[in-house]
Amino acid sequence: MQDELNPVLACLSSEGERAIERLFDFLRIPSISADPSHAGDVAHAAQWVCDELRRAGLNASVRPTTGHPMVVAKHEGPPGYDGPRLLYYGHYDVQPADPVALWKSGPFEPVLVDGPRGKRIVGRGAADDKGQVMAFIEAFRAWVKTTGTLPCSVTVLLEGEEECGSESLEPFLAANAAELKADACVVSDTGMWDIDTPAITTRLRGLVYMEVTIHGPDKDLHSGLYGGAVANPINVLASIVASLHDEKRRVTLPGFYDAVEEVPPSVLAQWRSLGFDDAEFLAGAGMTDDFGEADRSNMERTWSRPTCDVNGIYGGYMGKGAKTVIASHATAKISFRLVASQDPAKVVESVEAFVNGRLPAGCRAEFTRFGANPAFHVPESSVFLAAADRALTRVYGRSAVLIGSGGSIPAVGAIARIIGAPALLMGFGLEDDCVHSPNEKFELGCFTGAQKSHAALLAEVGRMRL
Amino acid sequence: MQDELNPVLACLSSEGERAIERLFDFLRIPSISADPSHAGDVAHAAQWVCDELRRAGLNASVRPTTGHPMVVAKHEGPPGYDGPRLLYYGHYDVQPADPVALWKSGPFEPVLVDGPRGKRIVGRGAADDKGQVMAFIEAFRAWVKTTGTLPCSVTVLLEGEEECGSESLEPFLAANAAELKADACVVSDTGMWDIDTPAITTRLRGLVYMEVTIHGPDKDLHSGLYGGAVANPINVLASIVASLHDEKRRVTLPGFYDAVEEVPPSVLAQWRSLGFDDAEFLAGAGMTDDFGEADRSNMERTWSRPTCDVNGIYGGYMGKGAKTVIASHATAKISFRLVASQDPAKVVESVEAFVNGRLPAGCRAEFTRFGANPAFHVPESSVFLAAADRALTRVYGRSAVLIGSGGSIPAVGAIARIIGAPALLMGFGLEDDCVHSPNEKFELGCFTGAQKSHAALLAEVGRMRL
Repeated sequence: MQDELNPVLACLSSEGERAIERLFDFLRIPSISADPSHAGDVAHAAQWVCDELRRAGLNASVRPTTGHPMVVAKHEGPPGYDGPRLLYYGHYDVQPADPVALWKSGPFEPVLVDGPRGKRIVGRGAADDKGQVMAFIEAFRAWVKTTGTLPCSVTVLLEGEEECGSESLEPFLAANAAELKADACVVSDTGMWDIDTPAITTRLRGLVYMEVTIHGPDKDLHSGLYGGAVANPINVLASIVASLHDEKRRVTLPGFYDAVEEVPPSVLAQWRSLGFDDAEFLAGAGMTDDFGEADRSNMERTWSRPTCDVNGIYGGYMGKGAKTVIASHATAKISFRLVASQDPAKVVESVEAFVNGRLPAGCRAEFTRFGANPAFHVPESSVFLAAADRALTRVYGRSAVLIGSGGSIPAVGAIARIIGAPALLMGFGLEDDCVHSPNEKFELGCFTGAQKSHAALLAEVGRMRL
Repeated sequence: MQDELNPVLACLSSEGERAIERLFDFLRIPSISADPSHAGDVAHAAQWVCDELRRAGLNASVRPTTGHPMVVAKHEGPPGYDGPRLLYYGHYDVQPADPVALWKSGPFEPVLVDGPRGKRIVGRGAADDKGQVMAFIEAFRAWVKTTGTLPCSVTVLLEGEEECGSESLEPFLAANAAELKADACVVSDTGMWDIDTPAITTRLRGLVYMEVTIHGPDKDLHSGLYGGAVANPINVLASIVASLHDEKRRVTLPGFYDAVEEVPPSVLAQWRSLGFDDAEFLAGAGMTDDFGEADRSNMERTWSRPTCDVNGIYGGYMGKGAKTVIASHATAKISFRLVASQDPAKVVESVEAFVNGRLPAGCRAEFTRFGANPAFHVPESSVFLAAADRALTRVYGRSAVLIGSGGSIPAVGAIARIIGAPALLMGFGLEDDCVHSPNEKFELGCFTGAQKSHAALLAEVGRMRL
């Protein structure tokens, strides 16, 4: 296949202008999934990308759900192929463009502008995720155009609800598990280390998100008449939240760290060699100092350590001035980022027991769970990881760095669990792409590098036999 | 004077019906000071009560301020009188009537209805404070009508902003201190122990109310990307709030208890003899259990111990569902009830130092002060207290109980500080009067008892020589 890859890469080069035009057409469709008034645009985008997959040579269809549709496409690879099948996951919906006034060009009027690292494509969805989706579609197109086939079996699954909760994803995966069966799932919704250095994300943190409401008095009380004699739900909540960390900023839930594994020294050494810039990281938050688990670097803290953060809190009088009330209840939205094999269900149980065990008599706690996903980790020994690294090395002339991400991609866990396809996170975004923000962009160099990398990955997988 | 009091009391009895009619006229004026659309009604109420004071025999005038007007009235007492002068403080403004739908009769259409303890007057302001103000005006009227004079020198100061912050009070007191000079200030805005047992409030807690905002990141951050590595202002705030109490529920501000005095055993014994009902007290809050400073009764906690309560808290995402943000800031409204000679200014300083000393590097705190009033305490040895007790004993056939109140009346402190007139809190409300709530009422028995008690107090003070 190595012989065949060169003409495929040449084809991608010669198709460059047209690939940009196709991506622009895709970007012009305001497929904002969260906004019901754009439902027609979301449907239009599904049909548009389905047609592109067909034109690229795949067997594609738009599949209805109770929400926005799925797009499924398949290619069986060369005749008689009996190697691995890749499932490509992506999404064709985008975030709202607000605040529109901060865009320098229309969010749905894509433009190519000059930037410090060459041309860049500016528009909502450029990097997240339409540009990354079109990159693998262009790779499919070039393979089929050049060789008449893909070098391996491929399934594509594109959803239209990634930016609004992915409600239909799990039911669809469950209902179509056999059809979607694959050996690995290529997720191209993550980033590179920098524009010259490819990266494979091998760690994503899991997430448990809970709302905890402490109920005390049956109405707001006069703090003069009752202050000092009855439990104040805000003080109780603050006290419970405070007790979730010890002085070393470790989470105090019993057993919380039992399933947490130390990062192997070799991986830590590789991370250190990346030259993570703490000052730049903190500047991105407008902070001068870090604050986290003792004796850990910020890279470790965000890529490989579990955390607890309160994401919102409210109770009592929140207006201007003073009101001397003791509130009847107070609420905190508390989330835990999980790593390794920490069990989300156990964390939820543990939080409930922790809170209930700290309530003054006469108070009660109410819990709402908004998500409980385990962490994701690609073992460094994965053969698909090795194949992706070879592909990226071929394109970039250097090995991919294995990175972590502090965030969570629920789809990754769902696909692994329901389809049995472990994820391979090979993404081409950059940290400054302004995803979810005004003036979202995708470097042209990232777009073309992504196309070539996917083309090379297909070649690598075509040679694999499990 | 004892001889003179009997005909005065008889006069009050015979004037009973007309006193109710006059109070009803007062209650019909919707003098809601917080609502600018009622400014004309507030002015009308000021003029109305000024006219009543004149008709009662005092020299009265409406005095403009930058806010609602003051009403000032004076009577010099008998010719050649050289005994103490009483300053009567009250207010002619009322709370809004919302929610109006919950009133059984119009809030400004006073009615006399039957209740379990006899007739009661229902209407906004019946107990707070128009009924209590008319009680002492009726006492003045009866004295002047019966004897041609008051038995002692009296000044009256009625404000129209008590229910909306008393902004004009301190400037007015300061500008008219000489004119308002008095030996004691009778405040009739508090309560009895029960309908048969008169009470004098000798302790009011002070209040420090602050808003504390913890600032961290310069914008809301993605909790996946930054969680565990930077200070989360909500967690920092919760931790500071939690550290304001120790395990015995004592406030941990350094020196906070230095100026707190133990209640004398004799007073504690009297309090215990009142038969304070803890279950009833807690039921009023919808609670089954108390929660406060260890080894203290609820009566002690609310009448004689300082406290710290968070009255409101907010930060981060407060909408429905989940949003994985680390908030840039979080705010708590924190109040401290003070007792004895605790210095509000020192508490404010101490809070600021406490918070600033617990901030992670890179965070900062912003403080807003909404009030800082010291506690109020009438020494049990006060001669005016003794006079009031004799007056109440004469009317009720039993000695007044000396009680505390967990709340604060800022005017009391201001009058003591600026005019030098220590307060005498002789009030006639009952706990179930629904002040600030729909269906506010004043027991007719309380209204007539109040009139007689004020008449008797004037007689007692007329006999005193300091």
